[in-house]
Amino acid sequence: MTGMMGLLATTWKNSLRRKLQLKPMVLHTVKEGQRSHILMSPPLVSLDLPDIWTPNSSRFSVSSVHKSFNEQTARLLDGKMVSMEIRSSIAGEVRRMKKCTGNVPGLAVIMVGQRWDSQIYVRNKIKACEEVGIKSSVTELPTDCTEAEVQNALLRFNKDQSVHGILVQLPLPQHLDESKVLDVLCLEKDVDGFHPLNMGNLAIIGREPLFIPCTPKGCVELLIRSGVEIIGKKAVVIGRSNIVGLPTSLLLQRHHATVTVIHAFTEKPEQVTSEADIVVSAAGVPNMVRGNWIKPGAIVIDVGTSPVEDSSCEDGYRLIGDVCYEEAVNVASVITPVPGGVGPMTVAMLLSNTLDSAKRMLDFN
Amino acid sequence: MTGMMGLLATTWKNSLRRKLQLKPMVLHTVKEGQRSHILMSPPLVSLDLPDIWTPNSSRFSVSSVHKSFNEQTARLLDGKMVSMEIRSSIAGEVRRMKKCTGNVPGLAVIMVGQRWDSQIYVRNKIKACEEVGIKSSVTELPTDCTEAEVQNALLRFNKDQSVHGILVQLPLPQHLDESKVLDVLCLEKDVDGFHPLNMGNLAIIGREPLFIPCTPKGCVELLIRSGVEIIGKKAVVIGRSNIVGLPTSLLLQRHHATVTVIHAFTEKPEQVTSEADIVVSAAGVPNMVRGNWIKPGAIVIDVGTSPVEDSSCEDGYRLIGDVCYEEAVNVASVITPVPGGVGPMTVAMLLSNTLDSAKRMLDFN
Repeated sequence: MTGMMGLLATTWKNSLRRKLQLKPMVLHTVKEGQRSHILMSPPLVSLDLPDIWTPNSSRFSVSSVHKSFNEQTARLLDGKMVSMEIRSSIAGEVRRMKKCTGNVPGLAVIMVGQRWDSQIYVRNKIKACEEVGIKSSVTELPTDCTEAEVQNALLRFNKDQSVHGILVQLPLPQHLDESKVLDVLCLEKDVDGFHPLNMGNLAIIGREPLFIPCTPKGCVELLIRSGVEIIGKKAVVIGRSNIVGLPTSLLLQRHHATVTVIHAFTEKPEQVTSEADIVVSAAGVPNMVRGNWIKPGAIVIDVGTSPVEDSSCEDGYRLIGDVCYEEAVNVASVITPVPGGVGPMTVAMLLSNTLDSAKRMLDFN
Repeated sequence: MTGMMGLLATTWKNSLRRKLQLKPMVLHTVKEGQRSHILMSPPLVSLDLPDIWTPNSSRFSVSSVHKSFNEQTARLLDGKMVSMEIRSSIAGEVRRMKKCTGNVPGLAVIMVGQRWDSQIYVRNKIKACEEVGIKSSVTELPTDCTEAEVQNALLRFNKDQSVHGILVQLPLPQHLDESKVLDVLCLEKDVDGFHPLNMGNLAIIGREPLFIPCTPKGCVELLIRSGVEIIGKKAVVIGRSNIVGLPTSLLLQRHHATVTVIHAFTEKPEQVTSEADIVVSAAGVPNMVRGNWIKPGAIVIDVGTSPVEDSSCEDGYRLIGDVCYEEAVNVASVITPVPGGVGPMTVAMLLSNTLDSAKRMLDFN
């Protein structure tokens, strides 16, 4: 185990360093002149404390909670297999759409810069589109492009009637304001579901978002297909990112789970996690969730996908999750592997959102 | 105690009955034809299970958790006093604005129907506006008015440059669709902060809402003014309404608390609540939160304000909170009274939001 725990992804460390350099530890950054002196709390509260996890510190004490692992081995939630089933159904629907309307769903991907991980993700998405008959395109922009250039690309696809879904591969280079870029995206084509109006509609009772973000949707789909009952269950979501943690917590709450969100400022995260029936981990910290964090019999969904150096692998690295699989598999009742768990489901949900969008726009059922 | 616990507000019971009649127990109501057969989970998940609390059932067992109360008596968080301070500062700012620009902030309230509680709330808001120099108006519409009539009133105020804040007193009569009404409201004047774009911006890291909903903002303001540290604390929000529970959980998370949301489907809510450092209760069920729900030394914010029949009172009723005050005061370290706790803070935050909005529109600092 020690060897594995020692493998901390260099990309993750670099990203943390960048975060620290760019976002100083200031609790409430409020734009000059906007602060109301009447209130102690700033009028607009900013979440500018970066979530820096310190997995190897004493905060994550291993000597607690569930000391003895069971002999059981968790059932594997095979995201790859489930996603293949979904993709096969989507392919059928795309064929039916083409036959009836002459159209196929269209997805436009905008990628800025040359991040190797983004390149892999985009390549996988495009390949998946091809396989199910969704027409796709990638617009590559240089790392040093301007906000206006990204916005212009978006505006072009907003107008293009053959495009039913648009996604901007995140993260963007640091000089680009993600919010300003995403604000331009036509709501009806926001297949990633990251627009604040979509997120608000996911949160508010009585409203419905046009799109549910792909990873959270994939997690819940996987739970439901595996016969896991969510209603009334204690769920812990580890991480509060806009892309995974936040929408996952909102979606699980819509399914009537009792949801707790854990972040880097959570005291005794292992204790809180060990009370959960369902754990969804999306911290991006390899092997952070140890076996003793897991309640015996819990369901564990591992969204983390961190590359760690491994010279024995062909590419010089391998992907590992947030959850220490070797330990957790002996405690949980159900667990997703990394890779082959949530990852393929995310891609399948993107295809599903794109198909749904095309159906809505073409008024095809 | 028994007598008090027996007093269940008739209005609350009636509202529950209405809910039950109108919203059958269907987990996922998806519009006909919109359901994708590819996915097990519906594409748009609806939260149509009504939150029906059963405070006197065995689910809320009293024989658990913290059996022995301390001898301590909690410090009272006097919302009335704090709100007076805030209102006094706001009055000063309004005078300064008038002197410098010739304008005062303007608030337009739209009230549909004759609900006695709405009438009291609106009266309090208007009175508070007068006291600080904010110009206010109430538009009263009959119970049987149409959606279009409410929307037209809103559209008129959207255009009116002397109006900087608009609020629609909720709840609306059942035949009106709250979403359709609120969608018309100009975002820059949404001083209640209930627009989904505002809610999305409250939820998403890196974005800022134009307005934070008044009750959650009042709760956090009260905490901060009382020297309560929120960061890293375990917070439990009881209730997940769009008006209080949801935005309170999002706001506390922005302040880096570890937040758990409890609702009517939560198993052992007393157990979950008893682990919290900060409890915000907004279930609307009188005396539901008993002393043994509270961790010794916890901070308790009681948003509940239910009228219960009491012939000894002048009006024939009195207001009581979600929290059984007589018990909780011996366990908590800090507690808000009902009335005189969160209520006055909510009104103060409405004034504060209206002032902020006027400052923003008039570019006045």
